[in-house]
Amino acid sequence: MNNIPNTFPRFQLELPSWIKGFLQQQPRAFPSLEARMNLVTTLSQLNIEHGTGGPFGAGVFRTDTFELVAPGANLVLSSQSSLAHAEIVAIMMAQRTRGVHDLGGKGLPPHELVTSCEPCAMCLGAICWSGVRHLVCGARGSDAEAIGFDEGPKPPNWIEALEQRGISVTADVGRENATQILNNYVEQGGEVYNSRQGSMDTSR
Amino acid sequence: MNNIPNTFPRFQLELPSWIKGFLQQQPRAFPSLEARMNLVTTLSQLNIEHGTGGPFGAGVFRTDTFELVAPGANLVLSSQSSLAHAEIVAIMMAQRTRGVHDLGGKGLPPHELVTSCEPCAMCLGAICWSGVRHLVCGARGSDAEAIGFDEGPKPPNWIEALEQRGISVTADVGRENATQILNNYVEQGGEVYNSRQGSMDTSR
Repeated sequence: MNNIPNTFPRFQLELPSWIKGFLQQQPRAFPSLEARMNLVTTLSQLNIEHGTGGPFGAGVFRTDTFELVAPGANLVLSSQSSLAHAEIVAIMMAQRTRGVHDLGGKGLPPHELVTSCEPCAMCLGAICWSGVRHLVCGARGSDAEAIGFDEGPKPPNWIEALEQRGISVTADVGRENATQILNNYVEQGGEVYNSRQGSMDTSR
Repeated sequence: MNNIPNTFPRFQLELPSWIKGFLQQQPRAFPSLEARMNLVTTLSQLNIEHGTGGPFGAGVFRTDTFELVAPGANLVLSSQSSLAHAEIVAIMMAQRTRGVHDLGGKGLPPHELVTSCEPCAMCLGAICWSGVRHLVCGARGSDAEAIGFDEGPKPPNWIEALEQRGISVTADVGRENATQILNNYVEQGGEVYNSRQGSMDTSR
């Protein structure tokens, strides 16, 4: 009998070394919303320059001390995983750092996800299950769509859907700068990669 | 200056050993839709029995040879990651097995995701970016909601949204059996865990 081989790989994902080096030059705490957004948009810009993925950055912060708990950048191409959007990487790393599946669990400080661009359908769902209590967005989904990225099947009332689940949303923080980074990426010939050959849609 | 420490963890996720052992007893190919669904609902049942997570199983198959490329089970609790839904685990492992971020890329055979229950909002988005070309579902989202799981912010026309992106959908395959496993889980006191303390919602 020709059975299934016992050789399934281990999934591993590590932050690129440039993120670690960059963060060592940064202060530990980011008291203003603008400073936190500036950190994640800088991650999106550096991610382009280092060629590790698309023009998206994110970070999970504590909202009591405003310390960065975990950064994220879009690592889809460099990690060969379509799951590795900036928000997913930040949530993944924050939960590993805390050793929990629920950043909103008892005994933990409140957490916030800051992202350089509104979440796509996948990241929107992931935010619901992550335990973060606040979401901060830079560019709008329509800004990403304007350069060819697909936001996926996302309900129009997604902000309300998060708020119904106890997650407040602050949008348009540093939108202009975040959108400029998206636009620069495409003008410089950055790949708007497409997971669905045969259709006109693109993913990020 | 109190800088950010350079100590971000590596994210690792490995299939539980029971999955590997179980699959070695299985044939390599599953020519009928029912056989593929039966494999993933068996994974969901065994996941309950082994205490490694919630009552959800999945698998990525080649649709030319009907071989299993990668299995998945809900490993949220055992892996301490809210991202580790069965569909995410299967996509993660299938892309690692192939060494690609796009299972629909050139030179690859067509791939299908089979899941014991309709995808939540996060998994719906992840399916769009994965490169699979066909989705097969057992239980409905409403069957999971009936025992207290939350499907998340998912548009009502989600099947159409997938089909617009070149992903066909076959629903209600073995729905009765898949739903029975969900119901048994809750009747046996299985945890319908909640990532949002302070709200009435539950996640899976």
